[in-house]
Amino acid sequence: MKTIDPPISVGVLGYRFMGEAHANAMARLPMFFPDAPEVHRDVLVGRDESALAEAATRLGFDRFATDWESVVEDVDVFYNLGPNHLHPEPSIAALESGTPVLCEKPLAPTLDDAERMADAADDAHVQTACAFNYRFVPAIRYAKRLLDAGEVGEIHHVRGRYLQDWLVDPDEPWSWRNDADMAGSGALGDLGSHTIDLARFLVSDQVGGIERVSGHLRTFVGERPVEDDEGTRTVTVDDAYSAQAEFETGAMGTFEASRFATGHKNDHTIEIHGSRGSLRFSLERLNELEVLREDGRGYETVLVTDEDDPYVDRWWPPGHVLGWEHTFVHENFEFLSAVAEGRPFEPDFSAGLAVQRVLNAIVESDGRGEWVSVG
Amino acid sequence: MKTIDPPISVGVLGYRFMGEAHANAMARLPMFFPDAPEVHRDVLVGRDESALAEAATRLGFDRFATDWESVVEDVDVFYNLGPNHLHPEPSIAALESGTPVLCEKPLAPTLDDAERMADAADDAHVQTACAFNYRFVPAIRYAKRLLDAGEVGEIHHVRGRYLQDWLVDPDEPWSWRNDADMAGSGALGDLGSHTIDLARFLVSDQVGGIERVSGHLRTFVGERPVEDDEGTRTVTVDDAYSAQAEFETGAMGTFEASRFATGHKNDHTIEIHGSRGSLRFSLERLNELEVLREDGRGYETVLVTDEDDPYVDRWWPPGHVLGWEHTFVHENFEFLSAVAEGRPFEPDFSAGLAVQRVLNAIVESDGRGEWVSVG
Amino acid sequence: MKTIDPPISVGVLGYRFMGEAHANAMARLPMFFPDAPEVHRDVLVGRDESALAEAATRLGFDRFATDWESVVEDVDVFYNLGPNHLHPEPSIAALESGTPVLCEKPLAPTLDDAERMADAADDAHVQTACAFNYRFVPAIRYAKRLLDAGEVGEIHHVRGRYLQDWLVDPDEPWSWRNDADMAGSGALGDLGSHTIDLARFLVSDQVGGIERVSGHLRTFVGERPVEDDEGTRTVTVDDAYSAQAEFETGAMGTFEASRFATGHKNDHTIEIHGSRGSLRFSLERLNELEVLREDGRGYETVLVTDEDDPYVDRWWPPGHVLGWEHTFVHENFEFLSAVAEGRPFEPDFSAGLAVQRVLNAIVESDGRGEWVSVG
Amino acid sequence: MKTIDPPISVGVLGYRFMGEAHANAMARLPMFFPDAPEVHRDVLVGRDESALAEAATRLGFDRFATDWESVVEDVDVFYNLGPNHLHPEPSIAALESGTPVLCEKPLAPTLDDAERMADAADDAHVQTACAFNYRFVPAIRYAKRLLDAGEVGEIHHVRGRYLQDWLVDPDEPWSWRNDADMAGSGALGDLGSHTIDLARFLVSDQVGGIERVSGHLRTFVGERPVEDDEGTRTVTVDDAYSAQAEFETGAMGTFEASRFATGHKNDHTIEIHGSRGSLRFSLERLNELEVLREDGRGYETVLVTDEDDPYVDRWWPPGHVLGWEHTFVHENFEFLSAVAEGRPFEPDFSAGLAVQRVLNAIVESDGRGEWVSVG
Repeated sequence: MKTIDPPISVGVLGYRFMGEAHANAMARLPMFFPDAPEVHRDVLVGRDESALAEAATRLGFDRFATDWESVVEDVDVFYNLGPNHLHPEPSIAALESGTPVLCEKPLAPTLDDAERMADAADDAHVQTACAFNYRFVPAIRYAKRLLDAGEVGEIHHVRGRYLQDWLVDPDEPWSWRNDADMAGSGALGDLGSHTIDLARFLVSDQVGGIERVSGHLRTFVGERPVEDDEGTRTVTVDDAYSAQAEFETGAMGTFEASRFATGHKNDHTIEIHGSRGSLRFSLERLNELEVLREDGRGYETVLVTDEDDPYVDRWWPPGHVLGWEHTFVHENFEFLSAVAEGRPFEPDFSAGLAVQRVLNAIVESDGRGEWVSVG
Repeated sequence: MKTIDPPISVGVLGYRFMGEAHANAMARLPMFFPDAPEVHRDVLVGRDESALAEAATRLGFDRFATDWESVVEDVDVFYNLGPNHLHPEPSIAALESGTPVLCEKPLAPTLDDAERMADAADDAHVQTACAFNYRFVPAIRYAKRLLDAGEVGEIHHVRGRYLQDWLVDPDEPWSWRNDADMAGSGALGDLGSHTIDLARFLVSDQVGGIERVSGHLRTFVGERPVEDDEGTRTVTVDDAYSAQAEFETGAMGTFEASRFATGHKNDHTIEIHGSRGSLRFSLERLNELEVLREDGRGYETVLVTDEDDPYVDRWWPPGHVLGWEHTFVHENFEFLSAVAEGRPFEPDFSAGLAVQRVLNAIVESDGRGEWVSVG
Repeated sequence: MKTIDPPISVGVLGYRFMGEAHANAMARLPMFFPDAPEVHRDVLVGRDESALAEAATRLGFDRFATDWESVVEDVDVFYNLGPNHLHPEPSIAALESGTPVLCEKPLAPTLDDAERMADAADDAHVQTACAFNYRFVPAIRYAKRLLDAGEVGEIHHVRGRYLQDWLVDPDEPWSWRNDADMAGSGALGDLGSHTIDLARFLVSDQVGGIERVSGHLRTFVGERPVEDDEGTRTVTVDDAYSAQAEFETGAMGTFEASRFATGHKNDHTIEIHGSRGSLRFSLERLNELEVLREDGRGYETVLVTDEDDPYVDRWWPPGHVLGWEHTFVHENFEFLSAVAEGRPFEPDFSAGLAVQRVLNAIVESDGRGEWVSVG
Repeated sequence: MKTIDPPISVGVLGYRFMGEAHANAMARLPMFFPDAPEVHRDVLVGRDESALAEAATRLGFDRFATDWESVVEDVDVFYNLGPNHLHPEPSIAALESGTPVLCEKPLAPTLDDAERMADAADDAHVQTACAFNYRFVPAIRYAKRLLDAGEVGEIHHVRGRYLQDWLVDPDEPWSWRNDADMAGSGALGDLGSHTIDLARFLVSDQVGGIERVSGHLRTFVGERPVEDDEGTRTVTVDDAYSAQAEFETGAMGTFEASRFATGHKNDHTIEIHGSRGSLRFSLERLNELEVLREDGRGYETVLVTDEDDPYVDRWWPPGHVLGWEHTFVHENFEFLSAVAEGRPFEPDFSAGLAVQRVLNAIVESDGRGEWVSVG
């Protein structure tokens, strides 16, 4: 892949939650990652001009635009942080212009879209990123180190779940996240994609890919009120999913996510049991990893904030904990460095596609009532 | 049902782990449950005369016997605590003699056996018990109170798992628990039966029964050494299972158990999310229930040892925790009182059968690779 | 010391909370500690004949008596489980008759009394026990093993606290525990005695005794209503205490107890930091010990229920947790075995006196506003 | 106090740990606190020119200087982030120039210095800050809300401890933090100052000030190697302290800190028990507050990340946790806003002095072996 000389100009589609998270990440690089390439927050893309103008100023962009078509050609790197149905076209256009693309997860609303995006990435020979930011949690990287070093042994079980509760109230208004056309799926794509990617990242070297799945999807509330309007709209995605999985080696996986898990705000946990040890992680305590060592008698609660822990030397002394947003700083550092240096980046669009294949198989399994092979 | 005048003579088949647990329970009734009927530990049944003689003395039985056939007619109540394949015949013989029976879980190695046992119970018009002792944990009873009072609201999710690790070492010797003929199934029957029963006990008033399941079973180690012998024997049961379930109302269930969960000894957890609250229980901290209340912001760790908590007034002041064995005391108190007073007992053989139907559907689903209705 | 041939007849003064705990312990020995000497629950001593008669029957005693004077001569072993002010005279009388004595903690209401009792014990050359039952928690014994093996290294800090909340309501009625004449002190003697003994048990081999203390006592509610009566009585003991301590090696201790710690029922914790590791224990989770090992990165939550853990082989398989009352079974086993075999027992009256010296120094320090040497 | 028109130029003494923390905080204001005054990172002050030059660039300062004398007059606001012995003179000089000062904690190495600084602040009529950043943790602010609303009731106990372990290795090199002249004290000033301030912040409205204390200080390792040199230097400060305190109302306080608490990195906990509830906070889980409510049965683990929690609306959705550094952003926002608007700021130098009086009394008490009144 080609190298790109800094300063790297970045065009960003999306200026709300994810736009802010990535803008903040880029803004923090010079102080904490001085070895990162210089980045130029160039242009912010959206539809609502006045909101966009405010956001561009606040988030440190030089300019804004309402048409992504011109932007994707005009910048060194394109960040696609829009709603899921806006992932394919702008990303593909950028790739066709030879512009590296970071796209938020899930890669696309449908498997077809994801395949088109991955094909475009293959053709473009530029870096792509599917922004599974939880791969960049220090405790997750530390878990990966332990797994790679064989400290967990042969893996038998992988268990992931992602619990939120923001839809448990039936009067919570309808949003694009409740719409199949715009979001593709519900809890499955939004939350489950994180879980499946994390599982793949952590254990696929040991147990191979997910070969087949059995899925279960459910919509608990079928109609939701429209905000600032009378009437309701139909919810066309799942409120929750569960899945069973079989990895190549026969390791067993169980996965689950819900927007109806009362009391849980952003509770993403992953647990692994192997022949020599076990690991547990919870996003709401993201500085910690629970480790059951071969010679141990119980889980050790490791505060992953020591100087030699992943990324931690960039920040503060031991015990001075990091937050959720730091994962974006690490991700942006790795992606933008890869772009500057002409190296590939992981997780890329093909990783996003791999997750999508699993999600798709889960949906298909739910529909057919039987196990489905992951293509 | 008829009443039985105390002292109630009890015949017990099985003198190891479960034999000791129930003998201890009976022995403790007079001091802590003086309102329980007087119980006479009459006869202990087993095969190995010398071990049996020692056990009978130590466990406080008047006598021992090696043939259950005569015993089941000869006592007021029969406890069947043998390995699973010994559950059907002695239990049915006892019932045919009009003798109330308490049988350990799972009710039987096969669904056919379970049905025969339940039929015999129906015909006998005497009390039966399928000894799901975790229904008698104070914290579980307290959870049931909260559920019955509507504090959890409409239930969306039920999640249960039971993790042990005693088979993770491939050199752990073969035992009857690894044999399909003697045990019926492995982790599924041994551990999963507890989970399914607890789920049914806690939520079936709200969400009805389990209508259909999708199951996954796995044997990680196929051959195990025979103790004190050369050679190996084949493991013909599952080392682990997982299952997805749908309840009548559409509530989702996920269940799992393993004997390969390194670091977990007897970790049985159950979690419930409803529209108004959530509950979490873990057997290794059995004095505690985690409660998310409607007006709460997080789980409250309730130490269920207050005077008005279930069964607690029988024991010690607040904060003086109970142990695993107390569940057997409560269970024996309830069962023997029911016998003395001519009242039915829950969970009975029909409850054991209901669990067995679910277990069977899980096995069948695993074989067919599709969801299976619970008969 | 002389041996006493079983069956050992036991006379017990006190039939409420502690009477029940010890009677239960004795009753359970034959089944779980068949190597314990045979014990005969002979006579129960109290004042209220009707309550006493009921208790004697329920707790398995052959007879009851209202005068301890004759009993202490008439039994093989005397258990003094009365309120604190009844500890000295009956215990001394028993010792003067050559009868071994187990006395509940704290040893006595005053240091003078404790010294008289310890002197009587010295003169009698029979076994004495000051019933600090928490020494017999498996997790505490396991902690002691780790400490003795040097796994914690040179000890710098010992921290103990015992939190309850049963007096936080100012309308909670006055009881003998609020009276200096009957109880000696309040939270200090009742709860602090446990903490000081546990600290001494665990660390005195490493850091020597407590050399000096600085104490702080406080009564938050000065008058309490009298139950079933009009009017109030004055609280003449502390509701809470704190203390700082210096051990012989210079190790630092901090201790605290309260009956006003809202939300805490029986929360006795002890924490130790050494040069190589740290330990934490909490009574409300008494099956667990948190261990920070030299090569560890965080506390390991050890479930102390493995077969080779202290006392655990007597009970159930791993993960089948014990309760508070089991500590009494272990204590009774050790004490009665010592009596039968003519061996000394620990903790004895001199251990009780050593604790009393520390308690006394804390009180004196509080009065004088300065550090006080422990005599 | 006068207002200062933005952009506010800031001069910062200190470019290591604290310099980075505050520079980062200022850099993040525009994106997340757009209502903050515009800030100009003007000049960075230090001794080592080359390190300083690198830091100034990286931390976003326009220039650097090696003499603070000229800087304190030349900027709108002065941040004193140097070692403790550098707190007094530059701060006083700045105040005498009418420049508002933010000074790191503890306010000064000695009580005399602290008094001089507070006097200078009184004379200057400008804003001062003693940078107790933990007052700006959302969970701590939420705790304060609960306390102010009376949800904890009348307070009986306050317990604070701050545990680290970075000095437990006797080969850990000597640094200025081990030197009485440069640091004033050791764990007491460095860690204990945070605890005392937090206790004052949280409870002084309910229980008044700390009236008297009993202190205990200890140096476990008396000599430490000098880095990159032969030989050792004497440690002239405490490695650990403990203290007992009495508040005006008679509420009891216990405080403790150590640099020898093996396994603890930055474990600052504070616990409060009142007549209606209890609170617990731990810095290593700074997004959580444990709350025992009046109608509750156990501590509720509240994730303080909801939109209406203090400062949280500035950041991310519920469950997306913050880190340690966010406390500095909040602190800088409040301080710089106060400066721009001519409002006083809390905690100011008088708050820093109040803490210093308590620290000083603890030292004095340790020396005299008796309780000491806080002046």
